Amino acid sequence: MRPSGRSIDQLRPVSIETNVTMHAEGSCIIRCGNTHVLCTASLEPRVPPWLRNTGLGWVTAEYGMLPRATTSRNRREAQTGKQSGRTQEIQRLIGRSLRAGVDRVALGERQITVDCDVLQADGGTRCASITGGWVALRLAVNKLLKAGDLKSDPLPTHVAAVSCGIYGGQTVLDLDYAEDSAAGTDANFVMTGNGGLIEVQASAEGAAFSRDELTKLLDLAGAGVDELVAAQKTAIA
Amino acid sequence: MRPSGRSIDQLRPVSIETNVTMHAEGSCIIRCGNTHVLCTASLEPRVPPWLRNTGLGWVTAEYGMLPRATTSRNRREAQTGKQSGRTQEIQRLIGRSLRAGVDRVALGERQITVDCDVLQADGGTRCASITGGWVALRLAVNKLLKAGDLKSDPLPTHVAAVSCGIYGGQTVLDLDYAEDSAAGTDANFVMTGNGGLIEVQASAEGAAFSRDELTKLLDLAGAGVDELVAAQKTAIA
Amino acid sequence: MRPSGRSIDQLRPVSIETNVTMHAEGSCIIRCGNTHVLCTASLEPRVPPWLRNTGLGWVTAEYGMLPRATTSRNRREAQTGKQSGRTQEIQRLIGRSLRAGVDRVALGERQITVDCDVLQADGGTRCASITGGWVALRLAVNKLLKAGDLKSDPLPTHVAAVSCGIYGGQTVLDLDYAEDSAAGTDANFVMTGNGGLIEVQASAEGAAFSRDELTKLLDLAGAGVDELVAAQKTAIA
Amino acid sequence: MRPSGRSIDQLRPVSIETNVTMHAEGSCIIRCGNTHVLCTASLEPRVPPWLRNTGLGWVTAEYGMLPRATTSRNRREAQTGKQSGRTQEIQRLIGRSLRAGVDRVALGERQITVDCDVLQADGGTRCASITGGWVALRLAVNKLLKAGDLKSDPLPTHVAAVSCGIYGGQTVLDLDYAEDSAAGTDANFVMTGNGGLIEVQASAEGAAFSRDELTKLLDLAGAGVDELVAAQKTAIA
Amino acid sequence: MRPSGRSIDQLRPVSIETNVTMHAEGSCIIRCGNTHVLCTASLEPRVPPWLRNTGLGWVTAEYGMLPRATTSRNRREAQTGKQSGRTQEIQRLIGRSLRAGVDRVALGERQITVDCDVLQADGGTRCASITGGWVALRLAVNKLLKAGDLKSDPLPTHVAAVSCGIYGGQTVLDLDYAEDSAAGTDANFVMTGNGGLIEVQASAEGAAFSRDELTKLLDLAGAGVDELVAAQKTAIA
Amino acid sequence: MRPSGRSIDQLRPVSIETNVTMHAEGSCIIRCGNTHVLCTASLEPRVPPWLRNTGLGWVTAEYGMLPRATTSRNRREAQTGKQSGRTQEIQRLIGRSLRAGVDRVALGERQITVDCDVLQADGGTRCASITGGWVALRLAVNKLLKAGDLKSDPLPTHVAAVSCGIYGGQTVLDLDYAEDSAAGTDANFVMTGNGGLIEVQASAEGAAFSRDELTKLLDLAGAGVDELVAAQKTAIA
Repeated sequence: MRPSGRSIDQLRPVSIETNVTMHAEGSCIIRCGNTHVLCTASLEPRVPPWLRNTGLGWVTAEYGMLPRATTSRNRREAQTGKQSGRTQEIQRLIGRSLRAGVDRVALGERQITVDCDVLQADGGTRCASITGGWVALRLAVNKLLKAGDLKSDPLPTHVAAVSCGIYGGQTVLDLDYAEDSAAGTDANFVMTGNGGLIEVQASAEGAAFSRDELTKLLDLAGAGVDELVAAQKTAIA
Repeated sequence: MRPSGRSIDQLRPVSIETNVTMHAEGSCIIRCGNTHVLCTASLEPRVPPWLRNTGLGWVTAEYGMLPRATTSRNRREAQTGKQSGRTQEIQRLIGRSLRAGVDRVALGERQITVDCDVLQADGGTRCASITGGWVALRLAVNKLLKAGDLKSDPLPTHVAAVSCGIYGGQTVLDLDYAEDSAAGTDANFVMTGNGGLIEVQASAEGAAFSRDELTKLLDLAGAGVDELVAAQKTAIA
Repeated sequence: MRPSGRSIDQLRPVSIETNVTMHAEGSCIIRCGNTHVLCTASLEPRVPPWLRNTGLGWVTAEYGMLPRATTSRNRREAQTGKQSGRTQEIQRLIGRSLRAGVDRVALGERQITVDCDVLQADGGTRCASITGGWVALRLAVNKLLKAGDLKSDPLPTHVAAVSCGIYGGQTVLDLDYAEDSAAGTDANFVMTGNGGLIEVQASAEGAAFSRDELTKLLDLAGAGVDELVAAQKTAIA
Repeated sequence: MRPSGRSIDQLRPVSIETNVTMHAEGSCIIRCGNTHVLCTASLEPRVPPWLRNTGLGWVTAEYGMLPRATTSRNRREAQTGKQSGRTQEIQRLIGRSLRAGVDRVALGERQITVDCDVLQADGGTRCASITGGWVALRLAVNKLLKAGDLKSDPLPTHVAAVSCGIYGGQTVLDLDYAEDSAAGTDANFVMTGNGGLIEVQASAEGAAFSRDELTKLLDLAGAGVDELVAAQKTAIA
Repeated sequence: MRPSGRSIDQLRPVSIETNVTMHAEGSCIIRCGNTHVLCTASLEPRVPPWLRNTGLGWVTAEYGMLPRATTSRNRREAQTGKQSGRTQEIQRLIGRSLRAGVDRVALGERQITVDCDVLQADGGTRCASITGGWVALRLAVNKLLKAGDLKSDPLPTHVAAVSCGIYGGQTVLDLDYAEDSAAGTDANFVMTGNGGLIEVQASAEGAAFSRDELTKLLDLAGAGVDELVAAQKTAIA
Repeated sequence: MRPSGRSIDQLRPVSIETNVTMHAEGSCIIRCGNTHVLCTASLEPRVPPWLRNTGLGWVTAEYGMLPRATTSRNRREAQTGKQSGRTQEIQRLIGRSLRAGVDRVALGERQITVDCDVLQADGGTRCASITGGWVALRLAVNKLLKAGDLKSDPLPTHVAAVSCGIYGGQTVLDLDYAEDSAAGTDANFVMTGNGGLIEVQASAEGAAFSRDELTKLLDLAGAGVDELVAAQKTAIA
């Protein structure tokens, strides 16, 4: 029995509200149950130094959590003077995941920075950031396409992510915080809209896990990502 | 003529949505026109070292701006490794302003941290943070009162703030970004619910200003704060 | 009765000793009672990047306090790894105040950095820094004028500053540390040589203050600044 | 055809030299082809604050790369003022992996810090660090067991790691730098001595990968880890 | 011929003005020619953690240079975020030198921090800091002795320092900046009041130097320190 | 009697193993007794900004100590966020010492960075770094000479270093950690291959030392450096 009463293969309710800020080229708030993330995509006309004159574009991401997004207040990273290892690991994952779905030749020498700021956290913030971040990126690219600034679409496929885990001995989909903090194994799956794998990060918190368990987690994730991609399509339409 | 078409003594539309996050003891989103700030109040049972065993409470504030709250993207302070002088100046002002409206004996040895995070900026973010921050503080204190944890109310008065300035030669109320960036003099007024002054910060950007002009700015601010206090009352009721 | 025995509208003795260091283009030590600040103005031929090719000059300020300028020793900011919020707030105020008295077109593409280092502190260090900093600036500009490097004088007016406050229920001029640490309201006024207001920063430490009280503080400040401007004139002559 | 001429399921030659430093409780240099890592295990009698009086031990890891371990010199992290995101991600992985193989009750309130410093890099440094780090940890624990300081062995199983990837369209074992920098998918597998999975981190660098490809990578990794565990046994014996 | 016209064994004029700040337990401004250093000694009743309950006292030093103490303005270390290697090296030397002249048992569990801040620099700032720092230390200790807080004098001997060097092929005493920046060898000598050596730091800037040259430098330094000790005696008397 | 049983003028056994890493242009591990330092020389085609278009080359050094090079584990400097004062002092000494033996005109506009990383420490790490660092530098320069990239040899002389001290009242050569931590005076001597002095750094830890004692230390050092230069020659041959 899951704390939320969900069945083992049941996602939390997902909603994606688009165009939520006036300045960003693309933006949304994604809500996966009680996890709420504000995602913005900012377009800049220039790429990092190492890409100049290569004709290639760049997509990068930054991640943050508001101090009271969590049960008890965390110190503000701007004040501690550095981003934690966890923050850096997450934003590297988001950036890498989104880039895997980008045709950087088609994008041309532009940079899009996707900022994912967690307003409220209840587990699965990195996956929600990827799913919502892709929507913000899609909206910013749509603006470029509409303006005739791109010859072809640099986003050939959707990118979405979901976490799964082994909770109470069972493989379950879309861990919330209550499950995540007690799970034996925690795994994040980033996938394309047609079922390709972009990232698999599975980690034993207590006992090691078996290849059979990994297979079950992959099955759950595949079905979950299908639902998330459908939510992305609805939001953008 | 103001860029927004407002009259010189006209506030932007104000709305204050309360209880917007599930974890914080008090929270709201305040919207002053296109300036949107998420304010949370976090209660901690212990005070900073220099107040231990004094019986006095503490209220402090932190301020942040999401990277794409502004027209063009700003670097994330968590990544630059420090809070800018502007950020520190603002959060010191917010903290000092809120503390001026707190009976720290009645609060007892507790700390409340008010976080003000700007989701979208269009001028006046520090004033909106104070007005919204006080609502978050009020809601957190109400929770303590309801639970019977306080003997008397430590918030004897409202605290709200508004900016005024000299724009195009005229004194005007509640500058938006278009006005603020062109204003000759920019002033922030923090006041109590019954017209007392907590902070006056008036600054000549170009030519010096006269005592007469300061008087007119004070008149505008007094009327503006009255409206903001009314909005606070509506939100909390 | 004031701790120092001064009357409520009495400044501390002011002296300004000029040309105290051999390297700086302009320098002075200002002594306002027991508050002693060394001010130097350093001329650089180039402006910050955002001003290049605009024809405009720049004046900026930095502020520091020697570790044992105060009653008990403070940690050296060079060792803590950052300037405190207080330091940054003060140096931003000094820079803004001095710039308000500069004709940046007449200055041309030059930068003058005014360093204000407190050798001994007894309250009012930011005001002394502004008053003394202006003298250092004036001396550096005089050197440019004498050398024929400027067509017209970029300093059309004096800039000086004084603090006032409500101490023991009375409005008093030029707070020293004993008063400042006990004052109900603390205010800093930066003014031009002909009575124009550049900055007003009034802050309630305990109870809110009234508009009447603000008026009285403005009166005291006006008279005090007149005396400080006279001292500046004597020093430069 | 692999650049090194190895077959697709062939590990690089592995050697593990133990007790290479006089001060550390456990130490080794592991050489996986041209990747050389010095691993030391340091025993401390006290655990981090959050574990005090829980009876539980702690194992943590730090990772570094000498500036000229690589083809061209990298800046020294001690001089840049922070560990890079990559460094933090790697050391978090090493620590998590080693802890997954520790019985923290049996270890008792002790901390063992495993330092992995790369003397020479040719791909696969994080996996070599885990495999070598476990040997250093084992040697330090053996010292405790020999001294009678532990009632039971806190290391019930070996922990070792290997990278695999898709290079030139083929799944291959144990990527060296030439392969790693050109690989389409890069994956790291951390496993126990009896085939349990501790971490799976697979990442598409270009095209997404399929579940079939993941299966083949898991097969290669399983065989590779068996060889590495054999090398660990030889080294410790 | 020296730029200043001095003979090769001639010190610059030395003056030591004592009790120059009102807060510090001991203070002086030392002027060695155009090098001016403000030295303060601050007494604290507690020692660093590693000395608690040992009965031993501690003397430490910090060094700083005002931004415009030099020919062209240097960046403020408080703003760059760290003390330079040069600053740290100098303050470690000052602290070590002063401690070598302290009977730490007689001092008891107290810490005295000597701050040396260069107001104006013309070469030899570290030596002036040691010579002036010792006077500040002596004055602070005298206050303790007068108050009856010490049983015996913890300063059995004077400590003073002077630089020498090889300039234009000749060994000369007390380098000023013009000489220092052109010297072939630069050496600092810290000595006790009775000719004992505390620190010798000789460094070839261009060609190596010989033992004969070192001997001549030692001779010059010995005579120079005698004069400096006489100046210390005059200042304290 | 020395803890190691050595005679007072006896060096620890020295070995220098060259070409120990595959990437660096020059490298060695120097072992002075139980002090082991990995030295690499990295060639870069460009010099620091202040040397561009001067025709002069640059040699610089960095120093680090692995966390468990010492008896008890030290915090990793990359994690504390800065290099300690000790580290900076040492790497400045190494760089200055090596540069003193370089003909920078002959080197031309190239930079060579010598990294000295202590794998195991038992006293004398800075001296071993200089002696070993020179070998790495020599090997890198030999590569340039062999390739015909240099017209003349920029290394006219050997550079080597040794520590001496007063231990148990006697002057002794080549202090190990047991002696160093108990020595009354500690001195480091850097010399050329033909007996010229590059650096003398002698420091009284307890009582001051005399000129006679300094003479004895110089005698010991001269003989010790001769042996070290012989070891350098053997290593390079």
